[in-house]
Amino acid sequence: MKKTATTQAPVNEVIANRWSGRAYDASKAVSNEQIISLCEAARWAPSCFGDEPWRFIVWNKNTDLASWQKAFDCLVPGNQEWVKDAPVLLLTCADTLFGHNQKPNRWAQYDTGAAAENLCLQAEDLGLMAHQMGGFNVDAARDAFSIPEQFTLMAMVAVGYAADIKTVTGEALNRETAARKRKPLSELFFDSVWNKPI
Amino acid sequence: MKKTATTQAPVNEVIANRWSGRAYDASKAVSNEQIISLCEAARWAPSCFGDEPWRFIVWNKNTDLASWQKAFDCLVPGNQEWVKDAPVLLLTCADTLFGHNQKPNRWAQYDTGAAAENLCLQAEDLGLMAHQMGGFNVDAARDAFSIPEQFTLMAMVAVGYAADIKTVTGEALNRETAARKRKPLSELFFDSVWNKPI
Repeated sequence: MKKTATTQAPVNEVIANRWSGRAYDASKAVSNEQIISLCEAARWAPSCFGDEPWRFIVWNKNTDLASWQKAFDCLVPGNQEWVKDAPVLLLTCADTLFGHNQKPNRWAQYDTGAAAENLCLQAEDLGLMAHQMGGFNVDAARDAFSIPEQFTLMAMVAVGYAADIKTVTGEALNRETAARKRKPLSELFFDSVWNKPI
Repeated sequence: MKKTATTQAPVNEVIANRWSGRAYDASKAVSNEQIISLCEAARWAPSCFGDEPWRFIVWNKNTDLASWQKAFDCLVPGNQEWVKDAPVLLLTCADTLFGHNQKPNRWAQYDTGAAAENLCLQAEDLGLMAHQMGGFNVDAARDAFSIPEQFTLMAMVAVGYAADIKTVTGEALNRETAARKRKPLSELFFDSVWNKPI
């Protein structure tokens, strides 16, 4: 189902239509080519000094169930409840040090967020749905996948096809059909001066 | 000029065509409606707990030259050299505290990076060019615009129309026409296991 953003001026339709649903269709796999598209979209995000500080791990339930399960086990129970039907999981990490001089990169998380957003938009473009989560056990995930301390674990991402809304019931249906909300533009976007609404 | 990303699988064309050029057309203004589109695209980015931790200040040279100049003066000289022709400047900031409980938000920079990427993609969609910069004096900008300590200043963004490439010469021409580069996908994107190339 489409839940297009309400905007005061036209916005690119992929940006306007991307949203973080929870009802996935467990019967539909994500192809390898689709996974490469998602990664390529992330790869071409901009970054400070062109450092590309992001790292992504991808788990595909349909090609390596055991690894997907290991990733799934790191999620908090509230997320596991709905992520169980998502065929693909990802983890986004930020390299704390610049590659060219090994000094702290204060834009590492910022740039990784940009790459992850490209991935989510690409999912929308492919007819898929991506949903990022902060709710996972960072220490468990670092342990399970031997992620070096140099990298900050940022978000898990569920990817898959949205379930046909006719198959969704109860509380899940309310959640999927609820209107998307944002604060008014004027609260966060300022004209020339801090706190002066645009 | 188009500098479409080279990818192993198709990628949405706005994502593939967005790039951070430096040669702006000083004679072409960005309209207020375009500025609202840019902000709306950022506004609809996803965020942890729906906190929307980003704040953007927008300076439009054509409606408030003095404020634009104040922002411009915060840039490092190497950026001032080419930003002088960009009619719009923005600053992106991240709220360090969650709105719902005033506790530290460890996704504030990550989510702000996503919102900024939406803005840059929307610029591409509108036929504009956006270029983010880490090279500015954070203390000077915080001072000049009275930005509370609770907010981390992340990036300045130049926005405007790209200059006709036929009008660009010398070193600037080399820079604008150089191929875009990224590390191989296999270096940053992993399959199920840390460091296993996808």
